[in-house]
Amino acid sequence: MISKSFCKRVKTTCAPQFIDITGWVTECVAESQIANGFAVVFSKHTTAAVKINENEPLLLDDMAAFLEKIFPRKHDYQHNNFEIRTVNMNENESPNGHAHLQHLLLGTSETVPIINGEIQFGTYQSVFFIELDHPRHREVMVHVVGE
Amino acid sequence: MISKSFCKRVKTTCAPQFIDITGWVTECVAESQIANGFAVVFSKHTTAAVKINENEPLLLDDMAAFLEKIFPRKHDYQHNNFEIRTVNMNENESPNGHAHLQHLLLGTSETVPIINGEIQFGTYQSVFFIELDHPRHREVMVHVVGE
Amino acid sequence: MISKSFCKRVKTTCAPQFIDITGWVTECVAESQIANGFAVVFSKHTTAAVKINENEPLLLDDMAAFLEKIFPRKHDYQHNNFEIRTVNMNENESPNGHAHLQHLLLGTSETVPIINGEIQFGTYQSVFFIELDHPRHREVMVHVVGE
Repeated sequence: MISKSFCKRVKTTCAPQFIDITGWVTECVAESQIANGFAVVFSKHTTAAVKINENEPLLLDDMAAFLEKIFPRKHDYQHNNFEIRTVNMNENESPNGHAHLQHLLLGTSETVPIINGEIQFGTYQSVFFIELDHPRHREVMVHVVGE
Repeated sequence: MISKSFCKRVKTTCAPQFIDITGWVTECVAESQIANGFAVVFSKHTTAAVKINENEPLLLDDMAAFLEKIFPRKHDYQHNNFEIRTVNMNENESPNGHAHLQHLLLGTSETVPIINGEIQFGTYQSVFFIELDHPRHREVMVHVVGE
Repeated sequence: MISKSFCKRVKTTCAPQFIDITGWVTECVAESQIANGFAVVFSKHTTAAVKINENEPLLLDDMAAFLEKIFPRKHDYQHNNFEIRTVNMNENESPNGHAHLQHLLLGTSETVPIINGEIQFGTYQSVFFIELDHPRHREVMVHVVGE
C-alpha cells in the first residue's frame, strides 16, 4: 500500500468564497502514482469547508445566498457573545458563529475513488474549498491511499 | 491491498426519489472478497445524492417534504436564469437549481467500514441513492479497498 | 495493509448532546500503530450523528438551537404518525422524526487522514458523537486502515 499527502496553502479574498481545487486534486493523484484507491480532500479548519458540486458561477451565487439566508453573518449567535464567552478566545477574535454553522451543513471532507489512475469525478463534479469566515491564509490537504 | 469497483445503472422515475441500494452494496462487498477495509458509495452526479438513513416510507415522505420546503422546485434560482447564464448550458437544459442546493445538504458519498467480511451497517441503516432532478438514467459506484 | 477496529459504548444523557470523542479517536490511532492511512469515525445509528466542528460550549448551544429551529421535536412528522405507520414499529416506539431529519443534515461519519502516526485534526477541530433522539446506550466505531 502507498500513501501520499499533499498540502496547499490558499489565500482567500472574501466569504463565502468557492475555490475550485479540482485541477490541483487531479494533479496530486497523478503525482502519487497510485492506480487504485481513494483521495480524501480534507479541510483542517472549522470555518472553511470542502464540498463537491457544479462550478457554474450563478449556482455559486445561489449557494452563497442560501448560506447567508439560513445563517446570516449578523445574528445573535452565543458564540459571538464575547462578554460571556471564555473558551478559545484569541486576540482579535472575530464574530464567526455564522461560519461555524454554515460549516456544519457543508462538511470537512470529500472522499473520491481512484480507478486505473483516474480520479472518478463525474462530468459536472468540481471539488471546492470554501471560505466561510474572513479572508486569510488557509490550508487544504489531499491524502491519497492505494496501490 | 485489494481494490474492486462496481458500477450500477439506475433508472429513476420521479424526484425526489430515495432508492435503497443497501442490498446491492452488500453484494458488492461479498463479491470483492475483501475482509477488512472500506466501501465508498459514490454518486458521479451533482443533482443525485448518496445518504444513509432509515428506510421507513413515511420518513422518506418527511425528507421529501423538507427538501421541497427548504429548496422549492419553483423559485428564482440564478442557476435557472437561462437569459444570463452562459456556463454549462446544454441543449434541453432544465431548471434544476433546487436539485443542486438539495444536493449540497445531502452529499456525494458515504464511507462504510468492512470488518471480517461484513459491511458495518447498523440495524436501521440503509444507504440511498437519491434522485433530486428529473427522472433519467444515473450511475452509482461502490469502490471497495482493503485486504 | 493493516486494519484495526475500535468500538466505544456511550451513555447519552440528553438531546441534542455533543460528546467530544477526539481524545478517544486519537488513542485508537496510537493503539493501531498505523503510521499512514485513514481513520473513519462511524455511527451505526440513524438518530445519532458524527461531525467535526469546534468544541466551544456557546457554539454547541447555537448548534442545538439551530437543530431545534429547523426540525423542532414537536412537529407533525409523518414518521411519528403511529396510527398509519406500519414499518419498523417497535414496542415503546418513540416519536423521533426530528432526530432522523437532523441526522440527514449532520451525517453518519467523518474520515480523517493519518500521517506519520498523527491524526490530522486542525487546531480547532474536535470530532463529536451527537445524540439526537432520547438518552440511551449507543455505539460509535473507529476503523483505521493504513500501513
